[in-house]
Amino acid sequence: MAEGRPRATSHPRVVVIGGGFGGLTAARGLSDAPVRVTLVDRSNHHLFQPLLYQVAMAGLSPADIAVPIRSVLNSHDNALVVLADVVGVDLEQRRVVLDDGESIDYDFLVIATGSKTNYFGHDDWGRHALGLKTLDDALEIRRRVLLAFEAAERERDDNARKRLLTFIVIGGGPTGVEIAGALSELSRFVLADDYRAVHADSTRVILLEGQDRLLPGAFHESLAKKAHVQLEELGVEVRVGTMVQSIDEQGVHLEDGETLESTTVLWTAGVRGRRLSEAIGVEVDRGGRIVVGPDLSLPGHPEVFAVGDAASVIDQKSGRPLPGIAPVAMQQARWVAKNIKRSLAKKDRAEFTYLDKGIMATVGRSRAVAQSGPFKMSGLLAWFAWLLIHIWYLVGFRNRFLVLFNWAWNYLMYRRGARLITGERQWERLHELSEQAERNYDGPNER
Amino acid sequence: MAEGRPRATSHPRVVVIGGGFGGLTAARGLSDAPVRVTLVDRSNHHLFQPLLYQVAMAGLSPADIAVPIRSVLNSHDNALVVLADVVGVDLEQRRVVLDDGESIDYDFLVIATGSKTNYFGHDDWGRHALGLKTLDDALEIRRRVLLAFEAAERERDDNARKRLLTFIVIGGGPTGVEIAGALSELSRFVLADDYRAVHADSTRVILLEGQDRLLPGAFHESLAKKAHVQLEELGVEVRVGTMVQSIDEQGVHLEDGETLESTTVLWTAGVRGRRLSEAIGVEVDRGGRIVVGPDLSLPGHPEVFAVGDAASVIDQKSGRPLPGIAPVAMQQARWVAKNIKRSLAKKDRAEFTYLDKGIMATVGRSRAVAQSGPFKMSGLLAWFAWLLIHIWYLVGFRNRFLVLFNWAWNYLMYRRGARLITGERQWERLHELSEQAERNYDGPNER
Repeated sequence: MAEGRPRATSHPRVVVIGGGFGGLTAARGLSDAPVRVTLVDRSNHHLFQPLLYQVAMAGLSPADIAVPIRSVLNSHDNALVVLADVVGVDLEQRRVVLDDGESIDYDFLVIATGSKTNYFGHDDWGRHALGLKTLDDALEIRRRVLLAFEAAERERDDNARKRLLTFIVIGGGPTGVEIAGALSELSRFVLADDYRAVHADSTRVILLEGQDRLLPGAFHESLAKKAHVQLEELGVEVRVGTMVQSIDEQGVHLEDGETLESTTVLWTAGVRGRRLSEAIGVEVDRGGRIVVGPDLSLPGHPEVFAVGDAASVIDQKSGRPLPGIAPVAMQQARWVAKNIKRSLAKKDRAEFTYLDKGIMATVGRSRAVAQSGPFKMSGLLAWFAWLLIHIWYLVGFRNRFLVLFNWAWNYLMYRRGARLITGERQWERLHELSEQAERNYDGPNER
Repeated sequence: MAEGRPRATSHPRVVVIGGGFGGLTAARGLSDAPVRVTLVDRSNHHLFQPLLYQVAMAGLSPADIAVPIRSVLNSHDNALVVLADVVGVDLEQRRVVLDDGESIDYDFLVIATGSKTNYFGHDDWGRHALGLKTLDDALEIRRRVLLAFEAAERERDDNARKRLLTFIVIGGGPTGVEIAGALSELSRFVLADDYRAVHADSTRVILLEGQDRLLPGAFHESLAKKAHVQLEELGVEVRVGTMVQSIDEQGVHLEDGETLESTTVLWTAGVRGRRLSEAIGVEVDRGGRIVVGPDLSLPGHPEVFAVGDAASVIDQKSGRPLPGIAPVAMQQARWVAKNIKRSLAKKDRAEFTYLDKGIMATVGRSRAVAQSGPFKMSGLLAWFAWLLIHIWYLVGFRNRFLVLFNWAWNYLMYRRGARLITGERQWERLHELSEQAERNYDGPNER
């Protein structure tokens, strides 16, 4: 690797893979340590993932929720940032292999590669059911939703228009709840006003969840019910206990034989560890997350750590896997930085424990659910708490301010600022969409 | 065309092609007229083109300078917006033909299709020399510039790094001057700080102009000299009287035999009317602009008008063609709206005269040149005038406010908020760029 100015030191080298909440926190946590840090990421920006759905729903611009990793770390003299795709790790040689064949040696390695959309073995569904993990995913969803409205405006066939204006969100976790609520608001209060052939009550947003309640897992059942009611107030059709049989260009085929016809299907039903975690050849759990010990290092490799969505860690209190949220990744990354420093000082490592400050999900404008320990909130108060906490954690003052302003504006004016369809020759995609909507399906099982 | 709610009226139908400054102003100018307006555009947004270079230079986000055409026109009950590509006009049948074979009849037609980058017969140069006319152009330039820095950071070969850090802007008109100044500032004050292997004095920005002065045409020569000096103060190498022989992946080959090696070449040397203008089969000038009469209508077709960059109009005062700037398009569009109303009222039409309020160009942070009639300005005062006027004309309060805030922030902090590399698999493009930079060229004439 070319490093420009050669480092004068021979300090141990820490390689961090990934510039998300985990990776960035690990790099920052080592800024005062006698180490050289190299952070490798495939994209040049750190993403504030909890607000990514707002980019997909045209409420925020990409730059509102993303900062260049370099600018976050440029005051850290011991940190180097490399834009590259890591294709493998040689655990014996202690070396990270990049896509162009080059490699970077390490003394310590932090794997913070995050997660990707999990179609549970049905990767072909990905063509029809869009996942939401990256800025490009969000821009593609924004494009598809806006193009569906454009196509509906030009459509003469009533059935085809119905298919274009039916939006299906699969997965009733926090992301699914947030995106279904935002999508319903966008359709009813913003877009319906802009199109002559679209009325608020002609758009349909359907949220499908396989389990018998929303927000399964960590959220209390009373809050799940509240979220259910809040979504219905926003006009979302919520269907729990509904299993998906298959997804194709006609729409979603349910296990009970029903077909929900739609040209826009979004998938938030699951994530799994990235390919790299499996490529390394260590033990991973069912979700492709790397199994780590109590100090978050790999069994047999105390110099290698995994954090955040890349790591499989069981919560000692609840007995359940820790949720894939930013606070978990950040607490683990701080812990890893601390343990690396302890190793350098020849001290014993400490075991990681997760301090659960709570979880929350927003349901559109002015509605949310939140819980922290025994304390539960819902409605407007929870929404304000959600808003403040998310703005607070956004990296950098500028983003915080802009996001606050955008939110306030949207809230007051029912407007969306970033309703742009970008990408070359979108009118051609419009036709493809119209053709898809106009096609005749003889039966629900025809693909 | 499906129009949703059928219009109850049988008012004459005005079709406007294009949602830029001309088209949008024409549609707005007809809001109180007894007509049905249909505005057709290939993209869903109106673009504030004068600040487009700021998106390319990572200073502003796309949504800061673009608004959905629908939201601009949604309070106009007589206006319909269609996202489509117009492929032809049947002047005899009075019908506009869309890409999908559908057509729209008109009683009046306003052609406001704007212009596209003109490579003067060398369309193959477009692969290496990027033009700047659309949001996608701007995002591609932003991507290429940021990737060049990323590739330079990883590059070991000094010559290859030099090629990656050499940026060539071809064309010394207002856009070329603005982009060269902004690019030099971005390189020296923002990016150089973020990369270890890049220093302020290792980046080169070269501005090439074929004529013997900058800002040829409407600007006074004394202002051209001021802009020249201001650019040099910012570190731009300005070369006037320099003709380009060819452009390829090695860089730019000049007529005098010199080769300027560079992986990033930007082209602002000219624009021409869009293909549609030529496809209609009416008289166009050398630049592909439609020749119109004194009332801006087509000779022999009083029901068809052309405005802005799509129209070829000679200024009666200067004897030169009117410049391709927003005030010209907007004044012409207002005139056309007025003349359509006069025709409906069976009144005689009025001849268009252009009221020249002045022209200006900005040269990076806190420098600009401006002239209005005999009055000339340069430096900080001109920059403030430029800033105020551009913010004032931005469509909609929200954009105005955001742009002001972004500008102030950049000005104070030497920071750029939108330094995002988006688009799939950018690390692969990084390699292509590195390979291009590392290739050995035996002689300047080898392609």
